[in-house]
Amino acid sequence: MQVSELSARSGVTVPTLKYYLREGLLMPGEPTSATRATYGEDHLERVRLIRALIDVGRLSLADAGRIIAAIDSDIESVSDLLGTAHSALPAPGLDEQESPEVAALVEELGWCVDPGSPARRSLTATLAATARAGVPVTPEALRRYARACEDVAAVDVDAVEGLSPSDMLMTVVVGTVMIDPVLSALRRLAQEHLSVQRFG
Amino acid sequence: MQVSELSARSGVTVPTLKYYLREGLLMPGEPTSATRATYGEDHLERVRLIRALIDVGRLSLADAGRIIAAIDSDIESVSDLLGTAHSALPAPGLDEQESPEVAALVEELGWCVDPGSPARRSLTATLAATARAGVPVTPEALRRYARACEDVAAVDVDAVEGLSPSDMLMTVVVGTVMIDPVLSALRRLAQEHLSVQRFG
Repeated sequence: MQVSELSARSGVTVPTLKYYLREGLLMPGEPTSATRATYGEDHLERVRLIRALIDVGRLSLADAGRIIAAIDSDIESVSDLLGTAHSALPAPGLDEQESPEVAALVEELGWCVDPGSPARRSLTATLAATARAGVPVTPEALRRYARACEDVAAVDVDAVEGLSPSDMLMTVVVGTVMIDPVLSALRRLAQEHLSVQRFG
Repeated sequence: MQVSELSARSGVTVPTLKYYLREGLLMPGEPTSATRATYGEDHLERVRLIRALIDVGRLSLADAGRIIAAIDSDIESVSDLLGTAHSALPAPGLDEQESPEVAALVEELGWCVDPGSPARRSLTATLAATARAGVPVTPEALRRYARACEDVAAVDVDAVEGLSPSDMLMTVVVGTVMIDPVLSALRRLAQEHLSVQRFG
């Protein structure tokens, strides 16, 4: 298809598509002349992915670009893959030091997690922020949240079992960004249900 | 304390504090002359809350303002309170219609949720976005995510039991925004742990 049809089918304007091409977010089409190219279904899929990361994942164009680059890179081992996926994702507090509270939690849960994992520092930063905002998370509540997140992660890991490395990376990266808002909506629905049950 | 000390203790510049005052995010101080006022610990706490909502909650100033207004309003019933809290929070897809898939899920789980709850439409929008991005959530995975989110919400609801209505509103609103990033960090840590266990 020509760029005009890619625009019509994706709902993204031609100038924006040209911007994605220049920035390397969208791979080049097949040249048909010095100034024209044709695009396929994989281009349409990629444009939808970029819009989804920005619209629902609430990512900046730069963060979406880092994720696309991670998806386009070739990685063979699962642990490298997860590390690449997580480090391509935006996360708060990456310049902080891990707190003793987070170290103790990981130890107590028996979780095997790399000491350098960005999520350790993010957890430290997000817990500190809840405390500063006047709604600290108690150690007991934190343990219960962690167990529930283990159940969430088990669904995530089941979803990538048996995939090729590149599909696995795509699923981990996109799934982590895109499913956080699904979980957030489910949490609000469950809060409403449990509040009605508890307080009438 | 004077505005200069409020600035030093909160780490927020004086012009920004004056902006918060003009916009009504920060309540006025006690006037000491025509052009001066003093501020107390509650002002410092409020400034920290505003920064936390913006820095960690990743909210716009307008969304943070809506949440502050909800906290400052007087609401008596718990269900009104949760409705106010949830509608003050930003959420994707509020202009969409609920999908049959979401209606069926809520029915199957036996959740009592208002048909007009914004989270129903958010869930529809976020699920549609995962499908568009090429990583659809299967019905089985969605059910498992929902059960895990019920465990998360049980912790949330336990945390507000016995609070006054205004403290409850503050905890629900701030807790919902601020704890989403905590859950996101815990999910990534649990993903890493389970991947190491599963794939070595």
